[in-house]
This record gives sequence, C-alpha cells and structure tokens, in this order.
Amino acid sequence: MKLHKGRVLLTGASGFIGRAAINPLLGAGFEVHAVARHALPGVSEVTWHEADLLDERAIKAAVAAAGPSHLLHFAWYAEPGKYWSSVANVDWLRASLVLMRAFHESGGRRAVMAGTCAEYEWSADAYSEGGSPLRPATLYGTCKNALQEVLAAFSRQTGLSTAWGRIFFPFGPHEHRSRLIPSVACSLLEGRVAECTPGEQVRDFMHVDDVAAAFVALLASDVAGAVNIGSGSGVRVKDIVRSIGGQIGHSDLIRLGARPMPAGDPPSIVANVTRLQNEVGWRPSRSFETALSDTLAWWRNCHDQARTA
Amino acid sequence: MKLHKGRVLLTGASGFIGRAAINPLLGAGFEVHAVARHALPGVSEVTWHEADLLDERAIKAAVAAAGPSHLLHFAWYAEPGKYWSSVANVDWLRASLVLMRAFHESGGRRAVMAGTCAEYEWSADAYSEGGSPLRPATLYGTCKNALQEVLAAFSRQTGLSTAWGRIFFPFGPHEHRSRLIPSVACSLLEGRVAECTPGEQVRDFMHVDDVAAAFVALLASDVAGAVNIGSGSGVRVKDIVRSIGGQIGHSDLIRLGARPMPAGDPPSIVANVTRLQNEVGWRPSRSFETALSDTLAWWRNCHDQARTA
Repeated sequence: MKLHKGRVLLTGASGFIGRAAINPLLGAGFEVHAVARHALPGVSEVTWHEADLLDERAIKAAVAAAGPSHLLHFAWYAEPGKYWSSVANVDWLRASLVLMRAFHESGGRRAVMAGTCAEYEWSADAYSEGGSPLRPATLYGTCKNALQEVLAAFSRQTGLSTAWGRIFFPFGPHEHRSRLIPSVACSLLEGRVAECTPGEQVRDFMHVDDVAAAFVALLASDVAGAVNIGSGSGVRVKDIVRSIGGQIGHSDLIRLGARPMPAGDPPSIVANVTRLQNEVGWRPSRSFETALSDTLAWWRNCHDQARTA
Repeated sequence: MKLHKGRVLLTGASGFIGRAAINPLLGAGFEVHAVARHALPGVSEVTWHEADLLDERAIKAAVAAAGPSHLLHFAWYAEPGKYWSSVANVDWLRASLVLMRAFHESGGRRAVMAGTCAEYEWSADAYSEGGSPLRPATLYGTCKNALQEVLAAFSRQTGLSTAWGRIFFPFGPHEHRSRLIPSVACSLLEGRVAECTPGEQVRDFMHVDDVAAAFVALLASDVAGAVNIGSGSGVRVKDIVRSIGGQIGHSDLIRLGARPMPAGDPPSIVANVTRLQNEVGWRPSRSFETALSDTLAWWRNCHDQARTA
C-alpha cells in the first residue's frame, strides 16, 4: 500500500500548467483532488470536483468535499492578449482570497499558489525574489502581487505554511495556439507565413512539465515565500523562431520584424533560480533544445491527427 | 432647488468615521446613500441601505439600488485590539474588491477608499505618499495596502477616478471606549485610575470630524492616488493624557508608565500633509487643543447622561 504524502486540492487542473501537475503530484505520493469547470476526459487517477471558482459557494463546497491537507492553486484568468488588462483579474484575486480562507479554515496545512514574473518591475535583466523591486505595470501583475502579499501576511499571522511560485515563460503541449511557440509552429506546419517581431528579446523559457514539476517540488518542501520558477537561462526569441523553422523545415515562411515589438516589452526577462535550486533543490530535467524538440513533435502530431481526422 | 454634486454611496456609515462623514457630504451637495448593517436612528437626511457588505449579493444589491456616481468606502473590520491581526481583514479586502467592481460596472465615476498609516514601514518620523516605503507589518496594513494597489491599477486600466485616504490617528465622539482618549477620559470621569504607557510616543491625532471632512474634500476633488489624512503635527501621548487629566480635574488618577509600550510601536508617526493641503486644498478647521476640549465635553456629556438615566 502506498503511503500518501497528503491530499492536494489542485485548481486550474484542466489548464495549461495545472494539467501538467497531475502526474508529478501522483508521482510524489499525493492523493489528487482536481478542481476545474469541466473534468479532463480520461484522467481517472484523480477525484474531480467540477466547479466555477468565481462562485464563492462553489469554492467552499469544493474545499469541504476534498478536505485537503495541501493546496496547489493555478486557476486564474489567462485569455491571451486580454489577461494583462482584464478586470477579471480582480475577480480571480477575490476568488483566491476566498479559497485561501476556506482552505485554512478546513484544516489545510500547506498552500502553494502561482505567481508571475510580471510582479517584478521590468527594469533589470535577471530577477531575484529578495532583491528585485515588485512594481507590476499591469492589472494582472498587480492582482497577483496583491495576492502574494496577503498570502505571506496571512501565513505569518496564522502559521499556515505557504509559498508562491513566480512563473516565467512556460511552453509545451496544450499551450494556447496564439502564443509564440504554438503560433509559429502551427503556421509553418500549415504552410502559412509566420509574422514575428524582430525577436531580439531574451526570455526564460521552460517546458510546462518542468514548471509543473518545480511547483510540486515546492509544494512538497517547506520553503516559504516567493520562489522564481524558471530555468535561469535566457533564450533570444529570434533564435527560438529560427530553430522552429529549421526543425519543421519551413524557414522560408518566417518573417522576423513583420510585427513591431509590443510597447513596454523589456529586452530581457530571466529568473534568478538560486532559491529554486538551492532551497527547493530542484532543476529542470531537460535542456531547452530537448524541450523545444519534444514540444514541436507534439504539435506535429496534433497537426497530423487533424489532417487524418 | 439645490444642485447635486452627485449621489454618493457611503459605506461604514454607522461607524466612527463614516457617521462623521454624513454632514460634510450633505454640506458639499451630495445626495447620500448610506450602507450599514443597521441604520443610525434619527438620521433621516440620507437614504439607508441596511446590508452586510461581507455578503457579495448584498453589496451588489446596495450598489444597484443606489445607482451612485460617487463611492466613499469606510467599512472594514475595526475591533480594537483585534483588527491588526484578524483574518477578517482578508474578508474585508475581498468585500472591497467586489464593491469596487460593482460600483464601476454600475456606472460609478469616482471612488475614494479609506487606507491607513499602517501601510507604511514604520521606520521614519514623517510619512509621505510618494517617498515613504510601503511595508506593512500587520495583516491589517497588508490587506489595506493590497486594496490600494489594486484600486490604483484598476483606475489606470478602466479610467475610473479614484483616490485613497491614509488615516492616521482620529479621535472624537463615538470612538471605541477602549482606545486612548476615551479610555483615559472615561476612567477619570468615573473616578478610576487610568493606567497608561510611559506615553513618549508622538502621533498625528486629528478630530474625526476633520478626518471625515478631509475625505469629503478628497472625494469632491479629482486628486488621484494616495493622500495622507492627518494634521501634519505630532503630539506626545503623555501630553495628551496630562491634558485630559487637567481638563477633567483628576490628574491624580493618571499612571503613566503603569503599562509597557506595545512591542513594535515606533516613537513617531506623523503625516506629511503636503498633498492634502496643496492638491486637495484642505486644512483642519481647529487646533488639536480645541478638538480635544470638544471631545472631552462630549464624553463628559455622555457620562452625565448615563448617571442621570
């Protein structure tokens, strides 16, 4: 019989990162109770709680039904192009506060929530949890940072063990198609032109399975406070785009510079991962190159299945 | 016929500062819709909405019923001795976010909310909105500061006009009896010993009617962001205590030093009031000495009425 590390309530469990957290949670010995508006088909190793977390009663009911010792909270508004500025960020902050209170009141012991590199003031090259100023430029970053501040103060006040994972640039299976890697990959697979920015910006990309695994390691640890969830290495966007072109075999369809850089996009956003490596004791399982190849294989498979369907 | 400046939804309207805001709001030409769990008896110039703001549906119903152009939000958990650390602070943050969203969605134009000097890192002598670091030491200060950050970002995103009044040390009629001035005054009026700290700390005290009037001036202005609501002058606590003793005529019952200074209490907390004076254009109507005499007269009257009742 398997010894359980605890019972975790996983929110956003059908989302991009949340779904990737299911296997590492099971692998780490957690009993998984997953919350999503709709359960993922075919995932039967977990107990599903179908609920809209924006509904206060639904949050409380899900927590009461699961009786979790651990909480891993990914659910948030994440519509590409809209999530930076949507007023829905305020609603997700509110829902997260209700969840935090309900989890603690029901006897929960350790909570880890998903933050973002957009909490930092984007004026440096590398960002560290203790040293870099927190001055989010967007409503998204502001609401995440407000939650982080309240979670930390709530933790100091109540003794609830908490941590906060600041996500940088995840990519991999099930990413929204309008985002960088899927949009370039799908364009080329479909033989369409991929219009890109000049791509000079450097970003800390990491495979979503590694992002999820890092969160599970953080949850299983007793590390407190904010921890950057990244690889610690930056990759230039134009190098990624060219690599996709080379691997898919359609470099001719790439148009670097066809679109302007979004206003306010800083030249470099890379995580300082000292806390993640030394305190949590976690490192990514594969190189960026391997992660990118794996991801392109997944998109190619999607594309092939769509054609033969 | 009187021209209305707008219709204001006043929350916490039966509370210490909220009730003091009713007359200045009416005087400034606002139509007042007041929210409280229980309407104040005898206050008929305003439209009362009896509601528990912690109930999300009640918040939305009150906003829908009032249809306000302006919002003046004082309601919060304020139980003396408990409010610094209570988890209820999280619930009031949540309720305030719901209120902000509902007010904006219903067409509201300008919102002013009540903050606190406890948002500042208490390491200076005087605190200014632009320059002093915001590092609240308590769950109360953290939740207020989180609301302030979200309100400002929401304002930038949506165009809703907002401001945030940071309250320092209000005193006056209807203050909770366990707080400094009422507790010393009531002890002496009842012939009991008043046990105090050594009283070396300097605080920015201001009469609650002036605090409320400053908020109304801020609401009627278009000043954006955080504004300290204080007098700009510090008074030493032992000087206040001695003045109460002199005015009530029972200096013999005062025991300065009978109680220790609360841990973490800084020597001086005084507002920089440059924004309030120069941008809002508001100054207190009376000196601290007059405000204290007025307040002691009110407590003496309470005491006399209780004796003859």
